[in-house]
Amino acid sequence: MSSDRQPAFVLVRPQMGENIGAAARAMWNFGLDRMRIVAPRDGWPNPRAVAMSSGAGRLLDDAMLAPDIAGAIADCTYVFATTARPRGLTKPVFTPEQAMTVAREKIAAGEKVAVLFGPERAGLENEDIALANAIVSVPVNPDFASLNLGQCVLLTAYEWRRVADQTPGEVMEMAGSDWATAVEMDALYAHYEERLDAAGFFFPETKAPGMKLNLRNLFSRLPLTRADVQMLHGIMRQMVRWKDRS
Amino acid sequence: MSSDRQPAFVLVRPQMGENIGAAARAMWNFGLDRMRIVAPRDGWPNPRAVAMSSGAGRLLDDAMLAPDIAGAIADCTYVFATTARPRGLTKPVFTPEQAMTVAREKIAAGEKVAVLFGPERAGLENEDIALANAIVSVPVNPDFASLNLGQCVLLTAYEWRRVADQTPGEVMEMAGSDWATAVEMDALYAHYEERLDAAGFFFPETKAPGMKLNLRNLFSRLPLTRADVQMLHGIMRQMVRWKDRS
Repeated sequence: MSSDRQPAFVLVRPQMGENIGAAARAMWNFGLDRMRIVAPRDGWPNPRAVAMSSGAGRLLDDAMLAPDIAGAIADCTYVFATTARPRGLTKPVFTPEQAMTVAREKIAAGEKVAVLFGPERAGLENEDIALANAIVSVPVNPDFASLNLGQCVLLTAYEWRRVADQTPGEVMEMAGSDWATAVEMDALYAHYEERLDAAGFFFPETKAPGMKLNLRNLFSRLPLTRADVQMLHGIMRQMVRWKDRS
Repeated sequence: MSSDRQPAFVLVRPQMGENIGAAARAMWNFGLDRMRIVAPRDGWPNPRAVAMSSGAGRLLDDAMLAPDIAGAIADCTYVFATTARPRGLTKPVFTPEQAMTVAREKIAAGEKVAVLFGPERAGLENEDIALANAIVSVPVNPDFASLNLGQCVLLTAYEWRRVADQTPGEVMEMAGSDWATAVEMDALYAHYEERLDAAGFFFPETKAPGMKLNLRNLFSRLPLTRADVQMLHGIMRQMVRWKDRS
């Protein structure tokens, strides 16, 4: 992924180095690696950030450090500010889904996009948000909104990937075996019906047709592989052997 | 939200109490409050879980404790297992988005749904996953998959809420080419602030900071092209010339 084809995530006055490292990991989980850092409280570089970033340390090595937000977003044409609550500023408000959709459109059109994330305790100040073009707000439980910095970065990065995701909604993991064919399912059913008939399972006789219909329907509804079918044949054979030995 | 109209989140053999508390907070952020806990390593109740859950402690008080997965899902008709990697088991695999869509459909039809989350270090065992009807897997960067328990709970809970969100995806209309950069917008704002200051616009002095904040916010909210910016500079220059001529 070209680093110019993604938004920059800007951590504004982050406090704990651990949270900077966690943000790097959250970003890289979803293929984002352009981090910018504004006035980190404990200076830079930060050994705690490095320790927490394991596997995503490159993001910290490559991070742009800036003294203020203006310096961090100088080259950007569109800036989002993440915030949990209304701020009394007239500004478009997007969900992360909408925001990352907009970000992809703007980036595809050649724009440079940044997303601002506030410090852990208080979030972005109104003076920070006034520098942004739009607000991103995660729709949380109105009775309980407690997302922290790392969680906010995670959800935004997740949406960046998800809104463009080509992953099919449902895939079937196949463990080295094809699906059983209708013929094989028929044979399995016939095997069971024959043995169960011999065992006196379909009783009383007046109910036997209904019981057989239900058994066939049960088998046909199961998504079985050839390996499954062989195992079910084996189970029935073994039960018969057990009976024959006794 | 009725507690019967949502999935149960089942933490399987969780290790750190802090992570149980964090999971409770992650769930309650998105309105989920049915937690079940299978064989927590450090026993139950867990003071560290309580300490970390602040604001969501009720989820821990109400959590069902079970000795094994079978006990935790006994009343459920459909069970998802979260896992990061393929397991060699034939099983449907869903994204969180698709899984929570399916969960909502099944719950609306009267089914009881559970989602299993594995222990921090190793995740769910294949024996655990074999008890589930389907797998949920977050589509992450194939080069870097490092989601922890709390992050997995967070993303799944987020999708539970998001897939039912009726908010239409509002997208900003594109307004021409060649957007102004942040530097150009800063210069424009500075130009206006300086001239307006000289003109006595920011009056009375006690209100000046708020007026400047609102003005800056107004500018940053405008989707301006470079041509727009030049015109706005020209307007201000012309007003000053007019003043100077009089």
